[in-house]
Amino acid sequence: MGRWEPDARGRLLKAAFELYGERGFDQTTVAEIAQRAGLTERTFFRHFADKREVLFAGAGALQDLLVSTVAKAPESMTPIEAAAAGVEAAGAAIQETGQLARQRQAIVLTSAELRERELIKLSSLAAALAHTLRRRGVEEPEASLAAEAGMAVFRIAFERWVADAAPGDLPQLIRESLERLKAVTAGGRAVAAGRRE
Amino acid sequence: MGRWEPDARGRLLKAAFELYGERGFDQTTVAEIAQRAGLTERTFFRHFADKREVLFAGAGALQDLLVSTVAKAPESMTPIEAAAAGVEAAGAAIQETGQLARQRQAIVLTSAELRERELIKLSSLAAALAHTLRRRGVEEPEASLAAEAGMAVFRIAFERWVADAAPGDLPQLIRESLERLKAVTAGGRAVAAGRRE
Repeated sequence: MGRWEPDARGRLLKAAFELYGERGFDQTTVAEIAQRAGLTERTFFRHFADKREVLFAGAGALQDLLVSTVAKAPESMTPIEAAAAGVEAAGAAIQETGQLARQRQAIVLTSAELRERELIKLSSLAAALAHTLRRRGVEEPEASLAAEAGMAVFRIAFERWVADAAPGDLPQLIRESLERLKAVTAGGRAVAAGRRE
Repeated sequence: MGRWEPDARGRLLKAAFELYGERGFDQTTVAEIAQRAGLTERTFFRHFADKREVLFAGAGALQDLLVSTVAKAPESMTPIEAAAAGVEAAGAAIQETGQLARQRQAIVLTSAELRERELIKLSSLAAALAHTLRRRGVEEPEASLAAEAGMAVFRIAFERWVADAAPGDLPQLIRESLERLKAVTAGGRAVAAGRRE
C-alpha cells in the first residue's frame, strides 16, 4: 500500500454507489469513481479488482459470518434452526449497512450481468451453508435441503425488506419467512378458490 | 428451412454431446459438430444459436411442461403439492431422454460458463413456477416460497439421480426429496451428537 488515505475503501464504495445510481453501472468508469472519491485509479485497483467487484466486495465477509454462526450454533439445534441462525446473522449484518444494501440491490437489478453474478454468489453461499451443516454431522440430502430452504427464506425476506418503503427489521422478516415456509411445506394454505386470470 | 434433413436437430444434438464428452466443451467447434453429424454449419445455425445453446435447447419445453402441469393441477392441491406435481412432471420428461440428461449434466459441470448458464435457467424456472402459483390465487410470499422449495427438491433429487451409478426413478426421487424437505423444515433430525471434523 502507498501513502495513507483515510478510509479510501469506504470513499470508493460511496462514490461508486452514487455514480451507479446516477448514471447506471454500464456508463460509469473506474476513472470517474476514483475522481469522485478524490483518489487515483491506482488506489481503486488496490482495493477492488474491477468496477463490478465494488458491488460484491462484502460477499466474503457475509459468507464468513454465515458459516461461523452455523458452525458455532448450539448442538441441540436442528439443521433448519442452525441454517436459520446463520441467515439471520447475515440479515442483521446487512441491516447494519443501512441504506447501502438497498442502494446496492437497486443497482444489481438494473443489469443482467450483475444479476447473474448475484445468482452465482447466492449459490456459493448455499454450498458453503450445506458444507457447514455436513461438518456438524448432518447427512445428505438433509444438509443441502436445509441449506436451500435457509437461502430461500433469506432471499424472500430480503426482497420484501428491499421493496418495503419503510424497511422493517430484516432478521424479524427472516424469522417470519421461515415460519411461512414451514406452513407451506406442511401443505398448509390450500389454493384459494378464486383464480386470478 | 432448406432441403429436408432427416432429424437434423437430433443428429446435431447427438454429435455435440459426443464431442463435448470426448474433447471438452471449450475445445469443440460448431464446424466439428456439423461434420460429425454429416451436416453443414448452416444447418447447425438453423437449429441452434451457438454451441452453448445445444445444451440448453430443452429448457423452454421443460418450463412449458412444468408451468402447464401446475396450471392444470386440481384446485384442491396446496401450493407445495402443485409445485411438486410440476417438478415431478419435469423429472419424468428428463428421465425419458435416458442417457442424454446424465451426459448433459456431466458436460455442464466441466465449465464455469455452463454452470452459470444453468443457474440462470433454474432461476427462470423458479420465477415461472412462482408466477403460475400466483395465477392459481396463491399469495406472496407463499407462492415464491413454494416455488423455491419445489425447485430445491427438484435440484437435489436430480443431483442424486445423476450421481447414482444405477439411476433410480427420478419422479420417485423427487417425491422422496419432498418428504425429506418436509421433515427438515418441521425441524426434525436434530444434529447428530458426533461432529465430523
